[in-house]
Amino acid sequence: MSLAGRSVVTMDDLSNDEVEAIFSVADEMSDSLHEQSSVCQGKIMASLFFEPSTRTRMSFEAAMLRLGGQVITAVDIGATSLAKGESIADMARVVGSYADIIVIRHPWEGSAKVVADYAGVPVINAGDGGHEHPTQTLLDLYTIKKERKSLRGLKVALWGDLKYGRTVHSLAYALARFGATILFRPAPGLEIPDHVVRKLVTEYGGELRRYGTAERPEAGGLFSLDAIYVTPSTPHQLAMMPDISLQVELEKGVDAIYVTRMQRERRDTAKGEGEIRRDYPVVDKRLLKEKTFKETLVMHPLPRVDELAYELDADPRSMYFKQAARGVPVRMALISLLLGSRKVDTGGDAKGPRIGKSHHVYDRGFGVRCQNRNCVSVNEEKYIKPEFKIVSLKPLTLRCVYCEHETFPKYVASAEWHEGTLKSKRYHSSESHWIKKIRPENLIIFDSESEAQSRGFLPGKHAES
Amino acid sequence: MSLAGRSVVTMDDLSNDEVEAIFSVADEMSDSLHEQSSVCQGKIMASLFFEPSTRTRMSFEAAMLRLGGQVITAVDIGATSLAKGESIADMARVVGSYADIIVIRHPWEGSAKVVADYAGVPVINAGDGGHEHPTQTLLDLYTIKKERKSLRGLKVALWGDLKYGRTVHSLAYALARFGATILFRPAPGLEIPDHVVRKLVTEYGGELRRYGTAERPEAGGLFSLDAIYVTPSTPHQLAMMPDISLQVELEKGVDAIYVTRMQRERRDTAKGEGEIRRDYPVVDKRLLKEKTFKETLVMHPLPRVDELAYELDADPRSMYFKQAARGVPVRMALISLLLGSRKVDTGGDAKGPRIGKSHHVYDRGFGVRCQNRNCVSVNEEKYIKPEFKIVSLKPLTLRCVYCEHETFPKYVASAEWHEGTLKSKRYHSSESHWIKKIRPENLIIFDSESEAQSRGFLPGKHAES
Amino acid sequence: MSLAGRSVVTMDDLSNDEVEAIFSVADEMSDSLHEQSSVCQGKIMASLFFEPSTRTRMSFEAAMLRLGGQVITAVDIGATSLAKGESIADMARVVGSYADIIVIRHPWEGSAKVVADYAGVPVINAGDGGHEHPTQTLLDLYTIKKERKSLRGLKVALWGDLKYGRTVHSLAYALARFGATILFRPAPGLEIPDHVVRKLVTEYGGELRRYGTAERPEAGGLFSLDAIYVTPSTPHQLAMMPDISLQVELEKGVDAIYVTRMQRERRDTAKGEGEIRRDYPVVDKRLLKEKTFKETLVMHPLPRVDELAYELDADPRSMYFKQAARGVPVRMALISLLLGSRKVDTGGDAKGPRIGKSHHVYDRGFGVRCQNRNCVSVNEEKYIKPEFKIVSLKPLTLRCVYCEHETFPKYVASAEWHEGTLKSKRYHSSESHWIKKIRPENLIIFDSESEAQSRGFLPGKHAES
Repeated sequence: MSLAGRSVVTMDDLSNDEVEAIFSVADEMSDSLHEQSSVCQGKIMASLFFEPSTRTRMSFEAAMLRLGGQVITAVDIGATSLAKGESIADMARVVGSYADIIVIRHPWEGSAKVVADYAGVPVINAGDGGHEHPTQTLLDLYTIKKERKSLRGLKVALWGDLKYGRTVHSLAYALARFGATILFRPAPGLEIPDHVVRKLVTEYGGELRRYGTAERPEAGGLFSLDAIYVTPSTPHQLAMMPDISLQVELEKGVDAIYVTRMQRERRDTAKGEGEIRRDYPVVDKRLLKEKTFKETLVMHPLPRVDELAYELDADPRSMYFKQAARGVPVRMALISLLLGSRKVDTGGDAKGPRIGKSHHVYDRGFGVRCQNRNCVSVNEEKYIKPEFKIVSLKPLTLRCVYCEHETFPKYVASAEWHEGTLKSKRYHSSESHWIKKIRPENLIIFDSESEAQSRGFLPGKHAES
Repeated sequence: MSLAGRSVVTMDDLSNDEVEAIFSVADEMSDSLHEQSSVCQGKIMASLFFEPSTRTRMSFEAAMLRLGGQVITAVDIGATSLAKGESIADMARVVGSYADIIVIRHPWEGSAKVVADYAGVPVINAGDGGHEHPTQTLLDLYTIKKERKSLRGLKVALWGDLKYGRTVHSLAYALARFGATILFRPAPGLEIPDHVVRKLVTEYGGELRRYGTAERPEAGGLFSLDAIYVTPSTPHQLAMMPDISLQVELEKGVDAIYVTRMQRERRDTAKGEGEIRRDYPVVDKRLLKEKTFKETLVMHPLPRVDELAYELDADPRSMYFKQAARGVPVRMALISLLLGSRKVDTGGDAKGPRIGKSHHVYDRGFGVRCQNRNCVSVNEEKYIKPEFKIVSLKPLTLRCVYCEHETFPKYVASAEWHEGTLKSKRYHSSESHWIKKIRPENLIIFDSESEAQSRGFLPGKHAES
Repeated sequence: MSLAGRSVVTMDDLSNDEVEAIFSVADEMSDSLHEQSSVCQGKIMASLFFEPSTRTRMSFEAAMLRLGGQVITAVDIGATSLAKGESIADMARVVGSYADIIVIRHPWEGSAKVVADYAGVPVINAGDGGHEHPTQTLLDLYTIKKERKSLRGLKVALWGDLKYGRTVHSLAYALARFGATILFRPAPGLEIPDHVVRKLVTEYGGELRRYGTAERPEAGGLFSLDAIYVTPSTPHQLAMMPDISLQVELEKGVDAIYVTRMQRERRDTAKGEGEIRRDYPVVDKRLLKEKTFKETLVMHPLPRVDELAYELDADPRSMYFKQAARGVPVRMALISLLLGSRKVDTGGDAKGPRIGKSHHVYDRGFGVRCQNRNCVSVNEEKYIKPEFKIVSLKPLTLRCVYCEHETFPKYVASAEWHEGTLKSKRYHSSESHWIKKIRPENLIIFDSESEAQSRGFLPGKHAES
């Protein structure tokens, strides 16, 4: 199928084949960066940045201009339409009538999906809060591919703020999809969140292996933490080291170390910042002397603060400025493909790829809301109907289709009234065995007993878990 | 005459024929939006936004880029040159030497006229405080015309904040010029101001008809307020319903309902905001079920807040997103005509149209100042000489040529000294019969007795009114 | 040599011949402003404004767009990457990989040099704090040249804020290089700084002549201050009036009077602002009636406040709006030459011109830092190694290579240990005769005794001056 007319909100909007197709177009763009000026002539990109980001915005705009297109930019939006009370959906519809493609950065998680739902033109997510930033992941992967020739069977260490680092989560998922082994080296207190690990394991076929203190290898005292082995999810990928030890793995070397700064702006308070900063692991010459890192690509999404020493800038393993530079051809490729100005057929479904497991969707309402207060569905509840994927029944786990945060509602009922009377409207604990008796399409979910009761439901036998 | 080289500060800068000419060019632009890229090649538009307005700015910029022109943008101006003490006139002259056309939004009323006076290139007013925003009016009219095929003999209801809603005033004048009947449905406390009604009646030939409570028709309890009938001002227009009742009118249906949000940002205080919000009339499905609105276009300049329900978005009568989209071809038409890149001859005077009555101008000074503290002439008095149209002698009413606010000075004198001595320099109450004895070209006006006396004038026999 | 690929951080990056070459290209650009749109096609300029400046930014952007190039703009940078802790060098490297040329305004002095050092593409300094703004100087000179036909042998009065006015310093140096006589008329308390005078005299071959109160000529009571005669520094320029009096000079007329506003934003405190404002010399009609100013060009970099009366705007001697307008062709010329889109050979060295005297460079460290807390080397010390030109030994004067501020370190030592033991590591007062005994390449410099001692140096015999 073609990418023309589609939006890219998360990496899951692209199949592995499509990712590879984007990279082959990026190669062409890269080889003749100054000769692409007729590709998107007459097209307009709207660059909507509700959060400032000079680097990302300029990269997108340079990409569009190098393609011969034009750009309308808004970096002042926070102070304007929103102040007047405008919804993201209205903004998307209006700007979608001005421009041929929209690039959006917005602090609310899931906001890019809303823009894509309403704009009527292709939308690229340039970062929606702590959720996704897929073109960053694309350029990260592209850099690895350019240097290592393949995306299959890589060993990549993620380093630093693994809790709030949106680029790190997105990269982890993508690496998993291509069958990589991922090693985690978080700063203290900034460990990779459980839901990310869970998603790596359940959606992308990863296998988690935790190392106890005793068996932790040293490698400069650096990997004293958990490791996740991701085994391939599709047959044509290589199965990866189910049995070998971390020590052996590290001795064979790491393909890339991906460093991130502390995401101060996403932390709720500055509490303990000084402390975190003090213990934050630093990548410098000393570290790179380890045999493990002899041929390791040093990557960073930039901007850096102190976690990546300036002394490495001239080191041939340092990739961070190359990453930034490669953002332009990668974005040129993506923009031209979504606009249909370049064509590539990667087979597959006209509805876009199916990445990860498929799940039942819960959109019945009954007061169930995403518990992430930074989710677009919470902030724009005026017109957004909450919608969740039921990713697990025991424990009952809903994943918001907007921000992908998980919630764990406590009560359930069935839409099939056994007696057809009010009395039969009973709710039960979601932890009781009852939940398995309700057919998914009949499931009604409540966040609280009071919510259930306010809608006329009475406690069932299994209301207490 | 041609529109080339002219500025559009208010709707009165365009004759009805010119408005229709712009619309026919907009039709062409609209039919081939992506094929206009040679029309304004090599031309630069400066987009100067002293007040943020993402939507309007992007619409103008998309229009210029679709025409093949280029854009230089400043949205940060409030914080920069002005902070350094720069005048609007200097800014206009400088930017006029960089660009071929200027689009300006500025919070001071009358500021766009100053820019037009000094820039040396065509200027389009994209909103000057509470004064005018003519391209919004053009796209509103264009939308009505596209849907109703004609602008003659329409019946339009204006809804919501009729006090501070700049777009509403401008649209009312334009509708009046095309012979429409206008019905008002204000939110409580946000009634249409007297000077707007007066201008509708005196300048554009409207006829005001107020309905007492008793005779107010119901139509869902909605039009319990005043109505203005505007009769046509030129012979070729149809004379409209001088005798028929509002009830009958409403039963025949309304062509368009124009909804506006509460203009919080123009209100002096937030006093009573909660109260106003509570009583603010809402346009929703229930309202549109009324027979009166069966074929009514629902319009809104956006952004909306709560006055227009999301449930209407899919209704075929809803025009607000179409309005926004049509802003691009309308602005393309206007820009290309003012730049002379497109030509159209509508006959008429090389000095531009004469809309409304002609009035004597008062520019003698003697301390008379516009009483609108948001007027550009008050804020830039260093180089702007106050100038007024004398729109009435009894009561003496001056309309500022910049912001069009009216002031009512209390004292007058004559520039013809009967005896030629200081003693004969006498001032009189503007409410006395004396005012009629002074020839307009000799009129001297004072805001106060102390002002008159400080300039050597003595109280005349009729200084007390 | 060609200008292609070079950066312009200060006026000293351009030889006099190169300045003249830029002006001849600017003449061509000016003659056919609308026909240059293929010169820089396919090229992108990044416009990075860490300090707002609508006028300068728009002028650069209009220039690039008239050349057929494209622009990516960031005016919001202060709030973004910097907030995330990004260095100027990283920003330069990243943006240099997006764009073909960078225009930078930044509040830190010397910052443009850092950008030029790291960007990998040509960089134009659009103002780095109080340091330089060379394109302003170019357009000032260009205006004088257009009006006076030559830059040789001019007499120019500098007027107003000579202390904080960056454009005034830069213009003074440039005028000196072309052999002008410069007269100073500062506002009280805003006299030209000593280091500027020193540089005029020592680097550009000027000769300072101060007038005592007695011999001060009147000329409307205006030049009751110091005058500097600048004699030509190269043989083919004319020697200028070593013996004639200021009175005689003024009677012969002044070629240009260059007025500047009070640079409030660069003053540390607002102390005495009202007072300064009251005594600030104003250029108005009355002044220009003096015989001295009969044919004087009135120049101003704009924006103006009160120092230049609006009544002069229509005077044929007023050049300030012409200056602004001429900024566009001058910048078009410079951009196209640096990009190599236009070629011009002016002979000379491939390393760029040598303007002024050549000096030994001190980059040994030992704790010597620039004393200007607004210098980029002080604010970005993480990766910038301090570097100074030794402009004088008695008194020991170091000029920072970034911000060009001077510091006067108190202590020195020699890198040649006479005995080769720690005991022989002695420091001395920089005011002692010892300094002359140390060969420049061996010089070690300290800001303080404690600094010297902390590095293992002991006080020498001449540690006390």
